[in-house]
Amino acid sequence: MHVHSAAIVGASGYAGLELTRLLARHPRVRITALYSDRWSGEKASARLPLDGPAGELAYLSLAEAEGAGAEIVFLATPAEVSAALAPKLLAKGARVVDLSGAFRLADARAYPPWYGFEHPAPALLAEARYGLPELAREALHGATLVTNPGCYATAIALALAPLLRSGLVRADGVAVTGMSGVSGAGRKAAEDYSFVEVSEDVRAYRLGKHQHVPEIEQTVARYAGACGPISFTPVLVPIRRGILATATLRLDGKASAADLAAALQAAYASEPFVRALPADRVMVKDVVHTNRCHVGVAVDARAGAAVAVSAIDNLVKGAAGQAVQAMNAAMGWPETAGLDLLGG
Amino acid sequence: MHVHSAAIVGASGYAGLELTRLLARHPRVRITALYSDRWSGEKASARLPLDGPAGELAYLSLAEAEGAGAEIVFLATPAEVSAALAPKLLAKGARVVDLSGAFRLADARAYPPWYGFEHPAPALLAEARYGLPELAREALHGATLVTNPGCYATAIALALAPLLRSGLVRADGVAVTGMSGVSGAGRKAAEDYSFVEVSEDVRAYRLGKHQHVPEIEQTVARYAGACGPISFTPVLVPIRRGILATATLRLDGKASAADLAAALQAAYASEPFVRALPADRVMVKDVVHTNRCHVGVAVDARAGAAVAVSAIDNLVKGAAGQAVQAMNAAMGWPETAGLDLLGG
Amino acid sequence: MHVHSAAIVGASGYAGLELTRLLARHPRVRITALYSDRWSGEKASARLPLDGPAGELAYLSLAEAEGAGAEIVFLATPAEVSAALAPKLLAKGARVVDLSGAFRLADARAYPPWYGFEHPAPALLAEARYGLPELAREALHGATLVTNPGCYATAIALALAPLLRSGLVRADGVAVTGMSGVSGAGRKAAEDYSFVEVSEDVRAYRLGKHQHVPEIEQTVARYAGACGPISFTPVLVPIRRGILATATLRLDGKASAADLAAALQAAYASEPFVRALPADRVMVKDVVHTNRCHVGVAVDARAGAAVAVSAIDNLVKGAAGQAVQAMNAAMGWPETAGLDLLGG
Amino acid sequence: MHVHSAAIVGASGYAGLELTRLLARHPRVRITALYSDRWSGEKASARLPLDGPAGELAYLSLAEAEGAGAEIVFLATPAEVSAALAPKLLAKGARVVDLSGAFRLADARAYPPWYGFEHPAPALLAEARYGLPELAREALHGATLVTNPGCYATAIALALAPLLRSGLVRADGVAVTGMSGVSGAGRKAAEDYSFVEVSEDVRAYRLGKHQHVPEIEQTVARYAGACGPISFTPVLVPIRRGILATATLRLDGKASAADLAAALQAAYASEPFVRALPADRVMVKDVVHTNRCHVGVAVDARAGAAVAVSAIDNLVKGAAGQAVQAMNAAMGWPETAGLDLLGG
Repeated sequence: MHVHSAAIVGASGYAGLELTRLLARHPRVRITALYSDRWSGEKASARLPLDGPAGELAYLSLAEAEGAGAEIVFLATPAEVSAALAPKLLAKGARVVDLSGAFRLADARAYPPWYGFEHPAPALLAEARYGLPELAREALHGATLVTNPGCYATAIALALAPLLRSGLVRADGVAVTGMSGVSGAGRKAAEDYSFVEVSEDVRAYRLGKHQHVPEIEQTVARYAGACGPISFTPVLVPIRRGILATATLRLDGKASAADLAAALQAAYASEPFVRALPADRVMVKDVVHTNRCHVGVAVDARAGAAVAVSAIDNLVKGAAGQAVQAMNAAMGWPETAGLDLLGG
Repeated sequence: MHVHSAAIVGASGYAGLELTRLLARHPRVRITALYSDRWSGEKASARLPLDGPAGELAYLSLAEAEGAGAEIVFLATPAEVSAALAPKLLAKGARVVDLSGAFRLADARAYPPWYGFEHPAPALLAEARYGLPELAREALHGATLVTNPGCYATAIALALAPLLRSGLVRADGVAVTGMSGVSGAGRKAAEDYSFVEVSEDVRAYRLGKHQHVPEIEQTVARYAGACGPISFTPVLVPIRRGILATATLRLDGKASAADLAAALQAAYASEPFVRALPADRVMVKDVVHTNRCHVGVAVDARAGAAVAVSAIDNLVKGAAGQAVQAMNAAMGWPETAGLDLLGG
Repeated sequence: MHVHSAAIVGASGYAGLELTRLLARHPRVRITALYSDRWSGEKASARLPLDGPAGELAYLSLAEAEGAGAEIVFLATPAEVSAALAPKLLAKGARVVDLSGAFRLADARAYPPWYGFEHPAPALLAEARYGLPELAREALHGATLVTNPGCYATAIALALAPLLRSGLVRADGVAVTGMSGVSGAGRKAAEDYSFVEVSEDVRAYRLGKHQHVPEIEQTVARYAGACGPISFTPVLVPIRRGILATATLRLDGKASAADLAAALQAAYASEPFVRALPADRVMVKDVVHTNRCHVGVAVDARAGAAVAVSAIDNLVKGAAGQAVQAMNAAMGWPETAGLDLLGG
Repeated sequence: MHVHSAAIVGASGYAGLELTRLLARHPRVRITALYSDRWSGEKASARLPLDGPAGELAYLSLAEAEGAGAEIVFLATPAEVSAALAPKLLAKGARVVDLSGAFRLADARAYPPWYGFEHPAPALLAEARYGLPELAREALHGATLVTNPGCYATAIALALAPLLRSGLVRADGVAVTGMSGVSGAGRKAAEDYSFVEVSEDVRAYRLGKHQHVPEIEQTVARYAGACGPISFTPVLVPIRRGILATATLRLDGKASAADLAAALQAAYASEPFVRALPADRVMVKDVVHTNRCHVGVAVDARAGAAVAVSAIDNLVKGAAGQAVQAMNAAMGWPETAGLDLLGG
């Protein structure tokens, strides 16, 4: 079995670390380079427990990433950095999996308002394949540029898409609250994320402005045919990792709880990483450290509403695990390759 | 200044303990009896730090509560217990402040579906005064039966009422997510609330079925004129105390963020315990251990939505602190009496 | 490769669950029976994510455990239950790995004072082999009754043994503080372990009375020649899993920090699961969800003391992981079998 | 009653904030100036809920602190800053309460090794009065320079002093583990103190090197006659505030648990802020947000040891609350002035 070389750029961030752990154990991949300015020069095994040759690698500086010779390059870098780096790597023939939002939106004009920069390589937007296999698997096969979905976007799209597709709920007036653990903010020496400021606190942020919104709408619309503007309120909760999202939808007609649960069940019956459960059995603790997403839906007939609940680990199914799953799909490998080691 | 005698029934629960601390320092009240089966016979000072005579009291069993001779009796008991006990105390001439839901709903028929029991004293429902001073102050003056609002209901009604009254948002299609700390579940030896099961977890519960829903709708309708059915999703978050609620409302016309913020600001400008802030500055940690509620609202014009955010301490403004504030209102005392000691 | 049948008795406790996850993935073992009264009749896959046939097993009641036909039976039961059950299983020819303290102490007379019961099968105490491979490997080979060390005992013995053996510190006057997460108390519906009571709190318990004390002294004495009475103070800290132990020892002569660090380094240089690090680099978060133990030692020449620090995951190296490692040793398999899947 | 003017330098740190809250409510003090570079120019009420005139103050920059005209100036600044500033304020006739270690040690030669700087005003070391009233009350009366004890030092000295004075334990070979919450590290934008890095972790730091050690030895020796070198291991635990310290002492002869408990009991029987309890009833959660210290002692006759346990809130009895208590003592006021508002 041919083993492919892989590199990780931005290997010291939380997602980069998670990727390193996963790829170090992947049966079809061998890590050949790790890039990180903060740990430049250090041996990887000094930073995380790695068996095998991956531990012997020394981190290289980000500036050297352009010269990455690996067959598959994972970018765990900020969107602007990825937007500049990906074209160079693709030009050299590498396959790129980007964990940032740099290639998620189809319309380049969405980048200034949502991401705060002008897209330097808009032509690549059409080439990029959205790395959410459960909803966009076929397009991923053979992809050379995989854009890894945002964490909130993953949790929310996986819950909404089958429900909207079912026609049992309306595509307009969707209201979502996304509760995320702190690692979603990235590795930060910022006081707002210090233990003293976060523990025992709950607060909403970036209300109505989160960049995962256009991504969710675009993805759900592709899968379900339509998706109205979504009101999304992110909330920071004092856990290290994990996301629970609650989405309130308006029933279209008299759908029962059973109908809606069946829609989720049917959509994911054969999926190794998504499981449909009763809405009050969807819990962050059941999915952390795994590549799984648990989804559920409850009906409040009185209010004419359905509430979908979704849970993932923001660093795994919301980042590194999904990146590996999407790479597997792009390479034509079993999607579970290197991911069935993640325990419950 | 005449000091009134007060008794607390159910003094060992989290709300009961909070009440004990507050009343022990209240300038116009003297605790004369504490009822608790679990601590029956023990001295209060063995259970919490109490200066003065309150510490010398021995807890009496709940069975003796019917004979409570105090002028003001606080019931921190389950709804069914309060529903049976309050009439007896009222008949003896006591003023009753009930922290349960036993007297919150105007319609006795709502009790079986929402609370699971047939109301034994439906005539009292019309007599009870809802203890949310900021929205129902006048009715509280001179009240002999005060029904303390539910914690979620307090946070949500305080945010929704002025916004719905303003006419800037619609009364229908309101979707709320309420994130609460664990003490909201009461003092429990239940595995679901053990540290191992709660820490690092987030989960929704009682979706669409929470008994605070009819209370919110009833309260907001009284204040604002109308309130459509509310979809409410409670979520358990790993903090000891506190509630953050996010309510998504549909804009009616083109209201600006400034318009909506002004509605909240105007409603609470003179209120000692409610403060209007930018929505992303509303945080649980700023209100815990105080009787304050912080509210804010953000507008997502793109989605035609407004998102209101509200934070309280479920044991203070959501229970004991509000009970004291309502007692103050009922007695004609400054509402801040005994509550200005609570620090930031 | 012959696959051996294994059963787990007490499979619903935290250690039992951890064992189930590990054994379900063990290359040389197949779970053939799971015993749990609380989940009796339920399918295992309903309780934890298990691939393969193990998920199809239905939990059997504990009463049926006597009839366990598996070749290797793991007992994750209270000491008194294990003490009664193990003899029956051994008599049937099973190999038993007991996670309780029932067979840890060599002297039957120690059971009443330390464990509160008279030992029903004192003859087995001499037959039992202490399952701490790094310190007692040879005796484990071929063992039919493996007694799994206590969690604190594991962390403390691994740190103390090489240091005492080195002769650089004295065997008397050892003072230990063991800080443990809440899962060490077991799966409990006890209020003392509720989230509200544990979060943001730290408290000492069972001072001087913890049953791991005689076990530590016995183990260290065997390995190092002598071990004076140890003063041990367990402390409950608000984490879900993990133990950090700090042991203050008296220097014997003028040993340097380098000398002591070298003693730890040398003892564990070839060990796959124990790693010597600088004392302030030993952290619980680096070992949780792994079978690793990190140890370090610092010297305070001014106080004539050495302080050893040790960290493990109480459910893995402190329970289930070590049980698997000891089984591997007993069976003559690589000790890492089934344990190299545990990530960092 | 004459109200004295007070100023706080370093008002934005956690201790500075706690001081601001306390002094704003102190019956005999009026805050007239607040100094903070980080919040320079902002109104205090924008930063914390303050009733009354204190909220109207605007923070001044630290450079202006030399000109502080207040009668009592509290320094919540780093030791080197305090060491430079205090002499200037004293020269102007102010009474100074310093929360840093700048004036705690009697011997100027101890500053380079323990604090890393040469003391600029060694003459003041003899003038400074150690602000631990329970052990050094008389010296505090009329003090013009009060040096506030370190947090760990407070917890440990309060537990050790009466025990060593009793003669029931030896003064040598004392081993202490101090477990502290994160606010003890100060307000920090440092990654080591981020939520992700601290939550679910426990780690020892500055082993044998903590600057509170000479302070503890000096204080206990003054009170008890002698105190051998103490081995002290600080440990960071994931709570926001609070310290639990466990000190293992060697019994001198055959002291019983009752004897030792009586020594603690007798020492603190009349103290409003220190309470002696059974060692396993000493808990951080009972003292946080109060100026109390709970102490207890257990005897392990088998190991010839006594273990003292002590709990405080590092920001209150370990910093701001104690500073206010010491100021009260220095001014000849009841020590509880302004501190009896702190609830349980």
